[in-house]
Amino acid sequence: MAEHLSQSELDYPFKLLEYFNGFRISKAIFSACELGVFDLLLQSQKPMSAVEVAQKLGTSEDGVERLLDVLVAIEIVDVEVVQGTAFYSSTDVANQYLAKTSPKSLHDLIIYNSQTIYPLWNNLVDAVREGKNQNEKTFGLPSEEIFSAIYRSEEEMLKFMGLMNSTWVIDGHDIVTAFDLSNFKTVIDLGGCSGALARELAKEYPSSTVTVLDLPAVVQTAQRHFAQQDDTICFQEGDFFEGEIPPADLYILARIIHDWKEDKNLKLLKKIHAACPPGGGVLIAEALLFENRRGPTMVQMFSLNMLVQTEGKEHPPSHYTHLLTDAGFRDVQVCRTGKSYDAILALK
Amino acid sequence: MAEHLSQSELDYPFKLLEYFNGFRISKAIFSACELGVFDLLLQSQKPMSAVEVAQKLGTSEDGVERLLDVLVAIEIVDVEVVQGTAFYSSTDVANQYLAKTSPKSLHDLIIYNSQTIYPLWNNLVDAVREGKNQNEKTFGLPSEEIFSAIYRSEEEMLKFMGLMNSTWVIDGHDIVTAFDLSNFKTVIDLGGCSGALARELAKEYPSSTVTVLDLPAVVQTAQRHFAQQDDTICFQEGDFFEGEIPPADLYILARIIHDWKEDKNLKLLKKIHAACPPGGGVLIAEALLFENRRGPTMVQMFSLNMLVQTEGKEHPPSHYTHLLTDAGFRDVQVCRTGKSYDAILALK
Repeated sequence: MAEHLSQSELDYPFKLLEYFNGFRISKAIFSACELGVFDLLLQSQKPMSAVEVAQKLGTSEDGVERLLDVLVAIEIVDVEVVQGTAFYSSTDVANQYLAKTSPKSLHDLIIYNSQTIYPLWNNLVDAVREGKNQNEKTFGLPSEEIFSAIYRSEEEMLKFMGLMNSTWVIDGHDIVTAFDLSNFKTVIDLGGCSGALARELAKEYPSSTVTVLDLPAVVQTAQRHFAQQDDTICFQEGDFFEGEIPPADLYILARIIHDWKEDKNLKLLKKIHAACPPGGGVLIAEALLFENRRGPTMVQMFSLNMLVQTEGKEHPPSHYTHLLTDAGFRDVQVCRTGKSYDAILALK
Repeated sequence: MAEHLSQSELDYPFKLLEYFNGFRISKAIFSACELGVFDLLLQSQKPMSAVEVAQKLGTSEDGVERLLDVLVAIEIVDVEVVQGTAFYSSTDVANQYLAKTSPKSLHDLIIYNSQTIYPLWNNLVDAVREGKNQNEKTFGLPSEEIFSAIYRSEEEMLKFMGLMNSTWVIDGHDIVTAFDLSNFKTVIDLGGCSGALARELAKEYPSSTVTVLDLPAVVQTAQRHFAQQDDTICFQEGDFFEGEIPPADLYILARIIHDWKEDKNLKLLKKIHAACPPGGGVLIAEALLFENRRGPTMVQMFSLNMLVQTEGKEHPPSHYTHLLTDAGFRDVQVCRTGKSYDAILALK
């Protein structure tokens, strides 16, 4: 594969320059989201000029025009020029994924990437040098206590929960349907955050009881900000590392393992195994590396991201199989969903 | 075009997620450059394991391994796995453009993007809101004096000059051969910085005398850090905005106009016109927008970049034609090079 890029790029490095430009593309989309561009274009009954957009959003005309033109170039906004004036309108993709009000909105994922992860990656050199996360250098927070950093204020907690929520809104259905989970009558999502994945599960398996167990502050924030009408899921305050794990037929660990070092994960899985009845199980949702670690590119990127932000990393399926087997589980099954996150099921 | 992205992306936004990941790809390459990964792999006589790379560069093994794996995924580093151990080697593209010692190295362009432009873009929302550069918010520097910000220390000056140098090392030949300039016997590159473009010109037109005119501190830094053996170009200290413009047959303005507001540019071009003999000319090198401003994407990105960092913007050819005509020049010719920067020639 490398040869392919090399040969075409030797005369002039168009692809490299595109990679160098990657941060600008990310930030252009993120900033448009933060400014409310996509919400405005969705709500507008007709295409809008840059002048109108600037007036509505309280921005400079020149700045928002340049931003809109970039969004047109990357096919996220549409344009029609009438008598020399450009009129911008939203696209289906923007309406579905970038507008805040859409059920499939990635707005919160974007805000978190823009305001938290982007500055953290400014210290990637130090992360690689030191082999540890950059919460201290970036935000002045202790690097050992990952979630003290992530949950340092209600605002930050809300942002992080929004990130998790966005992910499961688009990937949750694939995770809960990766295996037939209908036999598990009681399910606890450990660290289930806003409850988005639990809701997908409850929707798919209406006869199961689904509970989110998370830290008290998280549960309270979830109930204040993410509760839904006719919510069929329950919330329970607790700490699955320090406290007890309540009994259930199925435990979910979605994007938990990748945050932590191996010994901590093994201890946690043993504790879950002890709480789990025979025939019960654990469902892990993570982005899976290929067995040889050569891809998928996005998961390799996630793993580098874990270096910058946590004490964990992404793994290939065999890692999870070993970990689950070491903890006492059996019959490990792996399902690659083809989306960002994959599923692993193991039984006791 | 927007319809195309919309339709394929509605089911699952793979392309959008790739855009969101852009900043990570940029920073992964930038950080590898800053850590010296590409220089080490180039100098090494054989493929190296992550352990060896970590030892040589003084980094963590885990961190550098994740970074190397990402570089393999984007085809910038090659890998061969021997008995379970990955051995990494450089690619032709990395050797040519990313290693610091290569004549076509983009190393300095990368350092500037990573250390200066990346943090500036963290404030893109404010740039769009306020319609002005973010030197103050990002670096605590006054936003009105662009070059006081850019040249705030010798280190920063050197970084910026390195950026300019990198650009003309890969684009300079196309600029100086866009038109036959052999009739211009004396050439002054106004704001010619490190002299890279002037050197390309002197190489192509050996019978012409080529002088770089720039601020005293820039000239001194150029002579200390960018001088070459058998340099055929001259340097002259001056300020073409505040001071006199010496006589010459051809004046070059390479990436000058895009930094400033229109009135300042018009004043400068009138001053150049006054100093220029009949039959003489001015050569402008800039990235040109399409006439309708809908592309090229990279130039639209540059224009948004100018918002974040300067008081200028990128323009379509007609803007330069009007500006040059208003300043008294005639016979404006435009040449799109197909690379990042284009050329415009006008005569007196």
